[in-house]
Amino acid sequence: MAQERRISVLDKSFESRLPPSSKMLFDAKAGQSLSFEAIAKQLGRSEVAVAALFYGQAAASQEDVEKLSNLLGIPLPTLESQLLGFPDRGRAGPMPPVEPLIYRLYEIVQNYGYAYKAVLNEKFGDGIMSAIAFETKVDKEVDESGNAWAIITLKGKWLPFSRF
Amino acid sequence: MAQERRISVLDKSFESRLPPSSKMLFDAKAGQSLSFEAIAKQLGRSEVAVAALFYGQAAASQEDVEKLSNLLGIPLPTLESQLLGFPDRGRAGPMPPVEPLIYRLYEIVQNYGYAYKAVLNEKFGDGIMSAIAFETKVDKEVDESGNAWAIITLKGKWLPFSRF
Amino acid sequence: MAQERRISVLDKSFESRLPPSSKMLFDAKAGQSLSFEAIAKQLGRSEVAVAALFYGQAAASQEDVEKLSNLLGIPLPTLESQLLGFPDRGRAGPMPPVEPLIYRLYEIVQNYGYAYKAVLNEKFGDGIMSAIAFETKVDKEVDESGNAWAIITLKGKWLPFSRF
Amino acid sequence: MAQERRISVLDKSFESRLPPSSKMLFDAKAGQSLSFEAIAKQLGRSEVAVAALFYGQAAASQEDVEKLSNLLGIPLPTLESQLLGFPDRGRAGPMPPVEPLIYRLYEIVQNYGYAYKAVLNEKFGDGIMSAIAFETKVDKEVDESGNAWAIITLKGKWLPFSRF
Amino acid sequence: MAQERRISVLDKSFESRLPPSSKMLFDAKAGQSLSFEAIAKQLGRSEVAVAALFYGQAAASQEDVEKLSNLLGIPLPTLESQLLGFPDRGRAGPMPPVEPLIYRLYEIVQNYGYAYKAVLNEKFGDGIMSAIAFETKVDKEVDESGNAWAIITLKGKWLPFSRF
Amino acid sequence: MAQERRISVLDKSFESRLPPSSKMLFDAKAGQSLSFEAIAKQLGRSEVAVAALFYGQAAASQEDVEKLSNLLGIPLPTLESQLLGFPDRGRAGPMPPVEPLIYRLYEIVQNYGYAYKAVLNEKFGDGIMSAIAFETKVDKEVDESGNAWAIITLKGKWLPFSRF
Amino acid sequence: MAQERRISVLDKSFESRLPPSSKMLFDAKAGQSLSFEAIAKQLGRSEVAVAALFYGQAAASQEDVEKLSNLLGIPLPTLESQLLGFPDRGRAGPMPPVEPLIYRLYEIVQNYGYAYKAVLNEKFGDGIMSAIAFETKVDKEVDESGNAWAIITLKGKWLPFSRF
Amino acid sequence: MAQERRISVLDKSFESRLPPSSKMLFDAKAGQSLSFEAIAKQLGRSEVAVAALFYGQAAASQEDVEKLSNLLGIPLPTLESQLLGFPDRGRAGPMPPVEPLIYRLYEIVQNYGYAYKAVLNEKFGDGIMSAIAFETKVDKEVDESGNAWAIITLKGKWLPFSRF
Amino acid sequence: MAQERRISVLDKSFESRLPPSSKMLFDAKAGQSLSFEAIAKQLGRSEVAVAALFYGQAAASQEDVEKLSNLLGIPLPTLESQLLGFPDRGRAGPMPPVEPLIYRLYEIVQNYGYAYKAVLNEKFGDGIMSAIAFETKVDKEVDESGNAWAIITLKGKWLPFSRF
Amino acid sequence: MAQERRISVLDKSFESRLPPSSKMLFDAKAGQSLSFEAIAKQLGRSEVAVAALFYGQAAASQEDVEKLSNLLGIPLPTLESQLLGFPDRGRAGPMPPVEPLIYRLYEIVQNYGYAYKAVLNEKFGDGIMSAIAFETKVDKEVDESGNAWAIITLKGKWLPFSRF
Repeated sequence: MAQERRISVLDKSFESRLPPSSKMLFDAKAGQSLSFEAIAKQLGRSEVAVAALFYGQAAASQEDVEKLSNLLGIPLPTLESQLLGFPDRGRAGPMPPVEPLIYRLYEIVQNYGYAYKAVLNEKFGDGIMSAIAFETKVDKEVDESGNAWAIITLKGKWLPFSRF
Repeated sequence: MAQERRISVLDKSFESRLPPSSKMLFDAKAGQSLSFEAIAKQLGRSEVAVAALFYGQAAASQEDVEKLSNLLGIPLPTLESQLLGFPDRGRAGPMPPVEPLIYRLYEIVQNYGYAYKAVLNEKFGDGIMSAIAFETKVDKEVDESGNAWAIITLKGKWLPFSRF
Repeated sequence: MAQERRISVLDKSFESRLPPSSKMLFDAKAGQSLSFEAIAKQLGRSEVAVAALFYGQAAASQEDVEKLSNLLGIPLPTLESQLLGFPDRGRAGPMPPVEPLIYRLYEIVQNYGYAYKAVLNEKFGDGIMSAIAFETKVDKEVDESGNAWAIITLKGKWLPFSRF
Repeated sequence: MAQERRISVLDKSFESRLPPSSKMLFDAKAGQSLSFEAIAKQLGRSEVAVAALFYGQAAASQEDVEKLSNLLGIPLPTLESQLLGFPDRGRAGPMPPVEPLIYRLYEIVQNYGYAYKAVLNEKFGDGIMSAIAFETKVDKEVDESGNAWAIITLKGKWLPFSRF
Repeated sequence: MAQERRISVLDKSFESRLPPSSKMLFDAKAGQSLSFEAIAKQLGRSEVAVAALFYGQAAASQEDVEKLSNLLGIPLPTLESQLLGFPDRGRAGPMPPVEPLIYRLYEIVQNYGYAYKAVLNEKFGDGIMSAIAFETKVDKEVDESGNAWAIITLKGKWLPFSRF
Repeated sequence: MAQERRISVLDKSFESRLPPSSKMLFDAKAGQSLSFEAIAKQLGRSEVAVAALFYGQAAASQEDVEKLSNLLGIPLPTLESQLLGFPDRGRAGPMPPVEPLIYRLYEIVQNYGYAYKAVLNEKFGDGIMSAIAFETKVDKEVDESGNAWAIITLKGKWLPFSRF
Repeated sequence: MAQERRISVLDKSFESRLPPSSKMLFDAKAGQSLSFEAIAKQLGRSEVAVAALFYGQAAASQEDVEKLSNLLGIPLPTLESQLLGFPDRGRAGPMPPVEPLIYRLYEIVQNYGYAYKAVLNEKFGDGIMSAIAFETKVDKEVDESGNAWAIITLKGKWLPFSRF
Repeated sequence: MAQERRISVLDKSFESRLPPSSKMLFDAKAGQSLSFEAIAKQLGRSEVAVAALFYGQAAASQEDVEKLSNLLGIPLPTLESQLLGFPDRGRAGPMPPVEPLIYRLYEIVQNYGYAYKAVLNEKFGDGIMSAIAFETKVDKEVDESGNAWAIITLKGKWLPFSRF
Repeated sequence: MAQERRISVLDKSFESRLPPSSKMLFDAKAGQSLSFEAIAKQLGRSEVAVAALFYGQAAASQEDVEKLSNLLGIPLPTLESQLLGFPDRGRAGPMPPVEPLIYRLYEIVQNYGYAYKAVLNEKFGDGIMSAIAFETKVDKEVDESGNAWAIITLKGKWLPFSRF
Repeated sequence: MAQERRISVLDKSFESRLPPSSKMLFDAKAGQSLSFEAIAKQLGRSEVAVAALFYGQAAASQEDVEKLSNLLGIPLPTLESQLLGFPDRGRAGPMPPVEPLIYRLYEIVQNYGYAYKAVLNEKFGDGIMSAIAFETKVDKEVDESGNAWAIITLKGKWLPFSRF
């Protein structure tokens, strides 16, 4: 089907496991039919970071809060009191994921995890790719046959294990 | 510590959950101190794909098998009988991963899974990024302060849900 | 017992894990004693797809929403605001299923999963049958002894693993 | 990649959770490069049933055993002693499946399970589709664009819940 | 202690996982101090079936609903709207059971499961005892020493695995 | 299919979780094509008890051991050393059961557990049906239409909770 | 720290998994600063039994209910309607326990379980110590160095496995 | 049945999860038909401690090792090298226990855990009963009706939570 | 980003699994922008202990309650009734932790658990480090390159296993 | 009991989940009665790091390998081939830990995890304490009453979440 352009909204059944800011932000976003792309441009941040912030999975700076207040028409003190604590991450959904889109990412870790480890270890030594000193983005590419491809880039600082 | 350049080897405690080809391939690779980068160049494939092939998580073509036979000094019929079936994927390690490097990838899915979904849905509509019509690679970048960064790129075909 | 013709309704204990549209749709359907067959005919879609849409497991097009609004007597804006986001799939029930009917389907996967894989791999090569580029339907057959048989057809596009 | 025609073989890491007949049958099949299609024709059974029999998930009749003995060149008494007990089903692989192909089937149950139940109940009343009085097959279809589609048919007797 | 004759009631902490009919039925039953034995006699059904119906685990016929309406003094339309859908079974309690009485039944399956299978297979061939074409009852016996014994009878149709 | 009369054998993949006596007993039984019915008659015990004994789930008396030694042609001291300890129960198979026949019994507990509790409590008071002071048997019945029914009887002593 | 004498109260986060009587009883107990020791003396029962009764894990007799009504100032009919059903046991907390005090008891079972079994079997034969025909108490002992010791006594009827 | 006096032996299927000393000790004990009671007397320790030592769940002193060497006829150096390390506890069996005898102990923790906590807190304050500064024993009592009762005593030092 | 100094607040989605005191304390703390450091100084306790007390994971003394009442402006009787029971520990979050900060601590136990055991056993003998007679603190260190390091100190009394 | 000074050894039941170097190293250590303290001094590393290295949970440098070869009398090439790959961490034992000593560490994370997070966030901002750029040590302290205390220090670099 030719898919109409739509906006991601918050499923009501999510609300109980997310901070109250999530509902408020998603509702305001839906009310103005704003995409994450549009909001991200305003904040000067990645779309994924903004979506994560909406799900309570990323921190907001004072400046982010002010811009969101303007953009979404939510009073500043309300947003400040809800967004300026420290995120309690990891609770947006169950693991293993039951949502097919998210499961595919999980499956990539399951299938290629040891391959990534073997290659990363040979390239960088004994350590990990940080998920904290980390950034990520999503791109879209259309090939010559007109097929769309999604490209997710994960970029993390390499942390070698300390010798002690 | 200044890390010496080392080669990924197969932990003996893995052997029972991998196909017998894994041990054979890793042993031959270690015997010649070959990195995945070197083998990948010979095969004209991504390092991650080659490591996945070694862990029994990816298929080999007839040509791959012939090149591996030459490169690693394993008789062709032995390799053919072991590598030309269909991989039984997903068994390289436990989920959730207990290995810190692989756990970080899992944590990215856990923390950013719904953010990826929200952004991908807005960019592509209702569907998933395929993990089958899919390719991935690992890059290394060194920033101006001399810090190393690992970059993992995931590229999957976008599959819209069929309407029926 | 001679079973009276009945209509599937939504168990109240489901409501908390489904989107609010589910309750609204099931209630309207029950109020008019409409079967999924009848609704599916109106929408020009498969009964299973319509039931999945009611459980929040499938997307609705703008046209679907309009037809449902007419058919069920729910104001269009209400339906639009609830059905035009992106479904968050996979949450209709627990896995392994505890419902006997659904468990039987799970058991088929458990018992025949590797047999399907072996046969599909030999017929199609290394890949998967897509559950996204996918359609399914339910048929009824009565054999000569008067026994009813249910026939579920799963049809998915074959996706070969990319070589990379 | 243009996939060569290959034969499903038994991963060595499976052997410990399958009956000893599995290894013997798969080895003989590989030795003769026989597909399940070819064996199924000889036995007059469905390919899926034959693959299930190889995995120890389906019973063999005396006649099946005799034909398999001839076809695969395994002495009849050896096959008889191993195949004429009662299968201990359900152990071919873990649930949830980690193999991507089998996971897709599991995902179909997860996403559409309640939709199937709602539709089946309306069509047949209160009961289940049997997974015992049951048969299944796999077909291949190529659409006008040259895309291959896999079609899995599940046909089970409808069992109404007894009234007591 | 000399146990007074008491009536089973519905624990309030159950309500959220059962259909709303459960609370209504149990409350009416308690209000009239009716035992399941008494209700079962009125309905011409087994006590276990009636208790299962109260827990939302069994279907009611139109006639059952009418009798229950009369017996319990619940308006017929209320009962009809709640009891004439299709039960969503399997949700009355957790598995493994934490209730000692129910755990004992689970333990019987755990300890004797394979013994039952071995004996049933030898008596009936390759198949299962149906839990759908199934009835069950509870009896009480007092031995010569005055000890009470509970007797649970499980009677299910034998379903042979189809050959396909 | 017309099922030939067959003997239950021990799946080799069971051996590691059962005591060594299991393999010895099943092998001797298969060697003589003895059914559990035949052995049970010799021992004056229920078929289920004998099968449980073979699976290491029930104790043997000195007399049982002597009879088994005679019947199966296993030297008495060998049997004595293996069967006269105390069974370590509960390890014959996984829970939830993956074997369809055993799963049906589990499903009965899942669906009817609270119904049994409600009925047993009303009939006997606060307590449990013992699974220790317990006996069980399997019967076969053929109805007028020629359908076979399996009847499993569970008989356990009623144990009231002590007051303290 | 010198610990002040305190009264056990009911954590509000427990309420949803306990019967409504629990809150009522704990609140009344707290209102009068009554210890379980004091209540147990009035009821002529063990402190542990009384605490279990408060948590909905033990049955009350008619006489218990009357005494509790007097002692706690709760109207008799209210208490009767809530305490004279049959307890649904096993739901007071999660297993494995997360509370350190309760975890220590769990750890004793984990570490010494097989040692108890070996010793009990040698002393009593093949059977179990009943948890139903069972009583338990808690004592306090202070040794010569002034250290307090807790002594928990478990006393259960020995139930030999029936021969059948 | 009149149970013959028997000796606890080690199930062969246990061996892989216990230290090698377990098999050696149990075999020697069986060879001499020694009960734990007899060995405990020689060592001046509790039967439960001795059984725990046999299962690798308790430490042996140098003197214990010498006595065991004499009593069981195992060369001292062999025993020393195996018993004078530090036990790796907690691995004797699965949790939740599947063995009925051990499950009963687990059930006591499940049913009475919070009751013990409430009573212990009131008697001792905020803390735990140690499972390390701990001893336990098993006694047998026969009541006037000739029924045997098992009495398990748990005695642990009370540890108050530190204030910091 | 240059992180502004912020105060830890209580995520609303936590409230249902914590005692009601948690919300009250966190709200009052946020209202006055008090850090745990500031409160800990007033109470003469460790910051970690105070935070644990706020999460319902540590006990308060009468003096703590009085100081908190003054400091936070909460009426004394309200605080007394909520904080002077016995904490029900272990329920602040799921295990394994999904929060990245807490997961790192879990990972340390996973990776170094047996190393700690081996070293502690050699230093102290057979026993454990108590988590009850225990204190802990958090320190901050900045190295010469300006990097911040977190130092967590765990100090527990050594408890040798009793000999019995 | 007065505990003799003992050496940690490797339980044979561990071997299958550790790399083969573990057995070799522990055996050589036991053969020379070397403590981890002694080895650590030779290597100039922390005892915990050395024990982790023995369990395959930490990497060895070329220099470590040479020193271990000298100290333990294991040929250098043997050690090099086993210790110079990349550790596959996280597999030393199950989580939750069943060993009481290790469980106490897990319990500290369970009870104090959110308290650590709240305090660390207030002290350092939004981020984590690294478990990779990390070191740890174990100390022993004896208080004035002669009680031994174990002190575990965890020191990790603070990693702030990147803003992107």
